[in-house]
Amino acid sequence: MTRRHDVRLQGFSALASVEQAMAWLDAEGARLPAETIASSDAPGRVLDAPIHAPADLPDVDRAAEDGYAVRSRETIGAAAYNPLFFTLQESGTPLGPATATLASAGAPLPRGADAILPFSAASVEGEGLEILAAVAEGAGVEHRAGELRAGASLFDGTRALRAQDVALLAALGVERVQAVRRPRVRLVIAGPKRSVELPPGRDADGPLLRALVARDGGAIESVVVGANERGAIAQAIAAPGADMIVVAGRTGTGLDDEAPLALAEVGELAIHGIAVRPGGSTGMGRAGTAPVVLLPGDPLACLCAYELFAGRLVRRLGGRDPRLPHAVRDAEVGRKIVSAVGFVDVCRVRLVDGRVEPIGSVEEGGLASAVRADGFVVVPSSLEGHAPGARVRVHVYAESAG
Amino acid sequence: MTRRHDVRLQGFSALASVEQAMAWLDAEGARLPAETIASSDAPGRVLDAPIHAPADLPDVDRAAEDGYAVRSRETIGAAAYNPLFFTLQESGTPLGPATATLASAGAPLPRGADAILPFSAASVEGEGLEILAAVAEGAGVEHRAGELRAGASLFDGTRALRAQDVALLAALGVERVQAVRRPRVRLVIAGPKRSVELPPGRDADGPLLRALVARDGGAIESVVVGANERGAIAQAIAAPGADMIVVAGRTGTGLDDEAPLALAEVGELAIHGIAVRPGGSTGMGRAGTAPVVLLPGDPLACLCAYELFAGRLVRRLGGRDPRLPHAVRDAEVGRKIVSAVGFVDVCRVRLVDGRVEPIGSVEEGGLASAVRADGFVVVPSSLEGHAPGARVRVHVYAESAG
Repeated sequence: MTRRHDVRLQGFSALASVEQAMAWLDAEGARLPAETIASSDAPGRVLDAPIHAPADLPDVDRAAEDGYAVRSRETIGAAAYNPLFFTLQESGTPLGPATATLASAGAPLPRGADAILPFSAASVEGEGLEILAAVAEGAGVEHRAGELRAGASLFDGTRALRAQDVALLAALGVERVQAVRRPRVRLVIAGPKRSVELPPGRDADGPLLRALVARDGGAIESVVVGANERGAIAQAIAAPGADMIVVAGRTGTGLDDEAPLALAEVGELAIHGIAVRPGGSTGMGRAGTAPVVLLPGDPLACLCAYELFAGRLVRRLGGRDPRLPHAVRDAEVGRKIVSAVGFVDVCRVRLVDGRVEPIGSVEEGGLASAVRADGFVVVPSSLEGHAPGARVRVHVYAESAG
Repeated sequence: MTRRHDVRLQGFSALASVEQAMAWLDAEGARLPAETIASSDAPGRVLDAPIHAPADLPDVDRAAEDGYAVRSRETIGAAAYNPLFFTLQESGTPLGPATATLASAGAPLPRGADAILPFSAASVEGEGLEILAAVAEGAGVEHRAGELRAGASLFDGTRALRAQDVALLAALGVERVQAVRRPRVRLVIAGPKRSVELPPGRDADGPLLRALVARDGGAIESVVVGANERGAIAQAIAAPGADMIVVAGRTGTGLDDEAPLALAEVGELAIHGIAVRPGGSTGMGRAGTAPVVLLPGDPLACLCAYELFAGRLVRRLGGRDPRLPHAVRDAEVGRKIVSAVGFVDVCRVRLVDGRVEPIGSVEEGGLASAVRADGFVVVPSSLEGHAPGARVRVHVYAESAG
């Protein structure tokens, strides 16, 4: 630990840019190694390697609809005024001459058949069948490999699997896949401050970060509560077992803001203080091989800094798109968004009749401002805000993944 | 059960419209009663009743930033060339005259203080403090109830909670909330057909529906596999314990398509056959108090019909917005989307350079077409498609909630 890390009772003498912080995270955040998992556990997981179809789908010619399997050429000339008479035979045997057999959608075509005659084009007469219309070759038939040819690329190696993806794997008999290991994230809740007399159980950062880490595909390795002093924070950071560590609280310039000092003691503090609002006291560094992100304890600043920094690392380690995961909506500014040149501002906004309105000023309103917001706008450091009429991109807050 | 339910070997003589089917679901789908849950389990859950702030937040005047708590009027006249000398006192006691005390962001203001002086405006000199600048009353202070006033509405009674919502509840000490009970969904996998020789474990509908039900906030009550005959399907439908039942498979016009007959035997079959593609053999009805949706066994048709019908019911029972839950993106058609007048078509599409291109024709391509797709376009029954240049709404497939 060197004196230069200690901003306590001083304030930050220099701030890193958001771009510098992201570059540091991107350099640290190599995707984790793969593990083999059951395909049934794969929804939402990220594939580590491309998957190709192991077989044709379907692997036989089959009926695409319910009806009678026939030889199409034998139906030529059939009409309501000129019915042809076929024998109706049990399914499962090759088709004899002038015979038809019941076929359910999805069932393999019997040998010899090349079309499915709809029920409406036939009429059962005793043991036989009156054919009332001709059917073209291939009608109602799904040919072998019509959906997928063996060897075809199913997924590239970066895909988070969707419901239909997992279903297709099941249909193909792919029982196991290689998925990027879920990042094991340790949460160290280093607040509240000694001087703040919060009733027990009022920690907001723990529930906040648990839900956000789950959204980003991380797994909580452990949650350390009550590590408020430098030694305890250092110990919580240095313990093995996590792929990354998020410390919430004790990042500011007060006397008890010892999280950066604790990290510097057991590892390396690479960045402390970033030109972003809220969340300027965010820090980051490394303890052993594990990257560590220090988030402000104030819940609003914690939320905003998680989104920009810690979440990016969770997503990177897990092989996901590192960008903000929110749905975006481009919309017109309805009421001026005020920002500060030199700072990236994370402005909570509401969409009112499709137009964007800020909720209070960027550093005020606390967590309640993010609760009231529909989403947020990230104002670049080069701008002093957005005037009414400007088009901006809103990152829309979604319900939690639970 | 009446003969009119039996479409086997006949085909559908009439189809319900998608609007009729949705109206039936909406009439059946009353939101479930509430249950009390721990706030920590509440991410993603839907509130049953509005919540109001039980207390002011913060409940004292407190420091909004790190610095020295002072009486602002005592700093008047201070400047770098005219420093004022204050006593630095321990925090936790009322402020004496011409004294200052260290204050961390979030800490209650000591009695007598009305502003926070930044560290940059003071210099420690032995036991005392040189004040180098004046500070205005209220500077750096967050006043009681500045974030939230006791009694203020936090959430209306329909909200699915987000990460910051749960964090705010924790900050306010709200330990339990009333949430709509998660719908208990029974899955009855009634395929594959007798005549289809699928290797064991190749059921696609089960994994598909599990992931979709989870996405829509439902809980799987049980999964019944192997109920392929009328009696077994009827028994699986009639058993108590589920809020709704989804049967996959055996809905078509083949001889073994006995799911509608099974439902009619133990309950009521309200609708069978809907003017939608894929998924036209979808049915719905009631067994006791539980609504039942019959989905086609073909995985692509199962997916599309789940999205439009079964998912709507899961979302309604759970108190969620019944509309399609996908993010939407309005975009221009790049290649013609062909549809059929009289049918609602669910067309899988890709976004290529921001323009919408269909993937094959609406009833072909199987599950693989939904795997290759970025999303889908719902073409109303009044249109025969969309020409290039038309603006359409794409429902974007998302990774599964897992």
